[in-house]
Amino acid sequence: MTVLSVQEALSGKVAAGGEVSVRGWVRTRRDAKNGLSFIHISDGSCFHPIQAVLTDALPNYESEARRLTAGCAVIATGTLVPSQGKGQAFEIQATQLEVVGWVDDPETYPIQPKAHSLEFLREVAHLRPRTNLFGAVTRIRDCLAKAVHRYFHENGYFWISTPIITTSDAEGAGQMFRVSTLDMVNAPRLPDGSVDYSRDFFGKETFLTVSGQLNVEAYALSMSKVYTFGPTFRAEQSHTTRHLAEFWMVEPEIAFADLAELASVSEDFLKYLFRAVLNERADDMAFIAERVEKDAVDRLERFVNAPFERIEYSDAIELLRKADQSFEFPVEWGLDLQTEHERWLTEQHVGRPVVVTNYPEHIKAFYMRLNDDGKTVAAMDVLAPGIGEIIGGSQREERLDQLDTRMVQFGLDPAHYSWYRDFRRYGSVPHGGFGLGFERLVVYVCGLSNIRDAIAYPRAPGNAEY
Amino acid sequence: MTVLSVQEALSGKVAAGGEVSVRGWVRTRRDAKNGLSFIHISDGSCFHPIQAVLTDALPNYESEARRLTAGCAVIATGTLVPSQGKGQAFEIQATQLEVVGWVDDPETYPIQPKAHSLEFLREVAHLRPRTNLFGAVTRIRDCLAKAVHRYFHENGYFWISTPIITTSDAEGAGQMFRVSTLDMVNAPRLPDGSVDYSRDFFGKETFLTVSGQLNVEAYALSMSKVYTFGPTFRAEQSHTTRHLAEFWMVEPEIAFADLAELASVSEDFLKYLFRAVLNERADDMAFIAERVEKDAVDRLERFVNAPFERIEYSDAIELLRKADQSFEFPVEWGLDLQTEHERWLTEQHVGRPVVVTNYPEHIKAFYMRLNDDGKTVAAMDVLAPGIGEIIGGSQREERLDQLDTRMVQFGLDPAHYSWYRDFRRYGSVPHGGFGLGFERLVVYVCGLSNIRDAIAYPRAPGNAEY
Repeated sequence: MTVLSVQEALSGKVAAGGEVSVRGWVRTRRDAKNGLSFIHISDGSCFHPIQAVLTDALPNYESEARRLTAGCAVIATGTLVPSQGKGQAFEIQATQLEVVGWVDDPETYPIQPKAHSLEFLREVAHLRPRTNLFGAVTRIRDCLAKAVHRYFHENGYFWISTPIITTSDAEGAGQMFRVSTLDMVNAPRLPDGSVDYSRDFFGKETFLTVSGQLNVEAYALSMSKVYTFGPTFRAEQSHTTRHLAEFWMVEPEIAFADLAELASVSEDFLKYLFRAVLNERADDMAFIAERVEKDAVDRLERFVNAPFERIEYSDAIELLRKADQSFEFPVEWGLDLQTEHERWLTEQHVGRPVVVTNYPEHIKAFYMRLNDDGKTVAAMDVLAPGIGEIIGGSQREERLDQLDTRMVQFGLDPAHYSWYRDFRRYGSVPHGGFGLGFERLVVYVCGLSNIRDAIAYPRAPGNAEY
Repeated sequence: MTVLSVQEALSGKVAAGGEVSVRGWVRTRRDAKNGLSFIHISDGSCFHPIQAVLTDALPNYESEARRLTAGCAVIATGTLVPSQGKGQAFEIQATQLEVVGWVDDPETYPIQPKAHSLEFLREVAHLRPRTNLFGAVTRIRDCLAKAVHRYFHENGYFWISTPIITTSDAEGAGQMFRVSTLDMVNAPRLPDGSVDYSRDFFGKETFLTVSGQLNVEAYALSMSKVYTFGPTFRAEQSHTTRHLAEFWMVEPEIAFADLAELASVSEDFLKYLFRAVLNERADDMAFIAERVEKDAVDRLERFVNAPFERIEYSDAIELLRKADQSFEFPVEWGLDLQTEHERWLTEQHVGRPVVVTNYPEHIKAFYMRLNDDGKTVAAMDVLAPGIGEIIGGSQREERLDQLDTRMVQFGLDPAHYSWYRDFRRYGSVPHGGFGLGFERLVVYVCGLSNIRDAIAYPRAPGNAEY
């Protein structure tokens, strides 16, 4: 007897006529007539369930098979035979059926075989991967994550696990979560009344990281091509559907790279990820296109087949000013681009992804490299139709004197960043990188609109995330 | 002109006679005689640097080339020619040399071309990947991490990113880090004087996760084969060289798996990882064997070539009692095995890795499945020569009534774990998994003894980790 996953059974790993077992959870049961029933069994290994044909030749047909409900766990054993069912090359003529786990009170089982609202499913996150949609989202997210690591591996990058608990603030701004083991009621105090963090776990005040960028930069100046892929945190109360307090970020960093190379790598990288989904998760993407977002597959194909446009920020401002469209927010050199501007550029004007480069220096972070014009920095944002800004990056300021000047302009104390200044004293080279919010990517690929639907546990019991 | 990484140049990506550029940092400079110098350039892409031959035909030979010191960043351009050097198939006859970044005050540059103590290098973690040792460690760690994802991908597992910020304690014990945005000096209070966490960021008291296991279990009961690979945290002040406050853990979880299957998967998994290192990082492992741990390569080869032994805990106790060796800690049924016992079993008695199974129930966690004897649980530890316990796992208690009984015995409130109980009400199946501490694995493979040498930033400036 060969135990197969549903994916293996449906894809012909064993030839028709073979004796196999599959194990999983019942999606639906249909009784055709006296003595004949069909159940669909899913084990999460692929989008489609496999059908098992149950007859009254089974000793437990009346006592168990006809009592099966959605969610029951079964092992179906029998002969693999060709099936007429849609998406199902094979089905199982069961000669044995073992019910491994029943469903308590089937009436109240949350995952009934019907459509559920996304709001409801967030409240039963520990069960929602049993639905078609979240099974698909889980597999697509896995596919994207594996493709991230594979892309970097194939291109000579090394994965660096930068610190999660940190004393530095990579952005010079932004709310952070404090990490502490001090007693909140009676925290030790200094004479001036402030908290004595020298008595905290690490002997100083610590936070959850907002980005691994500064840390990974140093590794780029030893290993040339590196990346982080780990969780990052922002303690900003946001009630939009586009922000998470806890999210995974991909941050490659490349020595000797200029802005043009960063734009090329972004394009190559995103196309690689989307090609992986199109090739490896066609089953799930077909469902997404059918039920969630009609354009889901076509837009990925357009994305991978189109060259990205490059536009300078200054030119983008000119284009927006001449646009035959009125905007809510002002368009003026020196102001940041708003979502409406970004969407017009990528969706209306170009109709393809666009890399906007060389933004005014005062609207971007301190670590970005000042251009020779003294007014702009070597920053870039990748904008794409249907998603807006998907990647943000920059060449870093590798000249120590310029970095110090910018730190002071931004109100930062260079002494607090001594290690970050340090590797610019020792064989400093041009370098740069970019950041990709992983959940935003998942949400886009899956045609969803709420970023909480891209994480494993949105406000689930036992979990604080949202 | 073709720009190559050092790895590409040394491995013959371009044939001898080709014109190439390589970019990297100078390791050493040697002046042979007037008008001839050799520099070794490393870019982190592989263990060996490439040699560039510099002559006074270079216009900047006297003014720059002969002033190069360790750590200077250069671009060397010239002809790739066969080399007599050890480990170097090719070298570059430079026709052009660009110095991209000098070293400020070469006398005080921390990474001199000499041996450094590991203690010293931890203080300059942002520069230590420029050493032979930490370049090797970084590449080996990357190789192991990629192999983790690849193993699971090839075997049908999906990666789940379980929550980092959580309200539950997966172990029912262990110190946790609090995550909060409340003001430590004036935290809001309830009438009884305790902190009012309803006014904290998530509206309740939250911590950093100690394990993703409970969360990933639920996904196994939908997707069959899943795993986590992410950071976990323990707020235990440990002054050993074997513990970290922040570390990455790999936790696969498999539906329908019993203890025997878990032992087989552990064996298969570990051997896969070690094979990957032996095949893909032979350059770095040769250095480790030469300079750090003479047995480093041989012991990995023995590991992958030997079948793991299986021993029941009760039999292990008998063996230890009869052992021709005295132990510091008592050997008695019901007591946990100490490191000295584990080492005797795997190193002295068996001489190969051992999976010890079925431990007394009261020394193991509440979620482990009670065996029919009522005295032991279906737990396993994988022990290996030279490292001791490397994997710990168990079949989980899938029977709701037994789980509730054990929770109460362990002083846990089942109501606090309602979601964890929940998926045992809906198609519960036997399932289990194990945990592998990623940094312990890295330390072992690299022949090091201090776990802080397996992380990117041990007590580096700007980082609280240690």
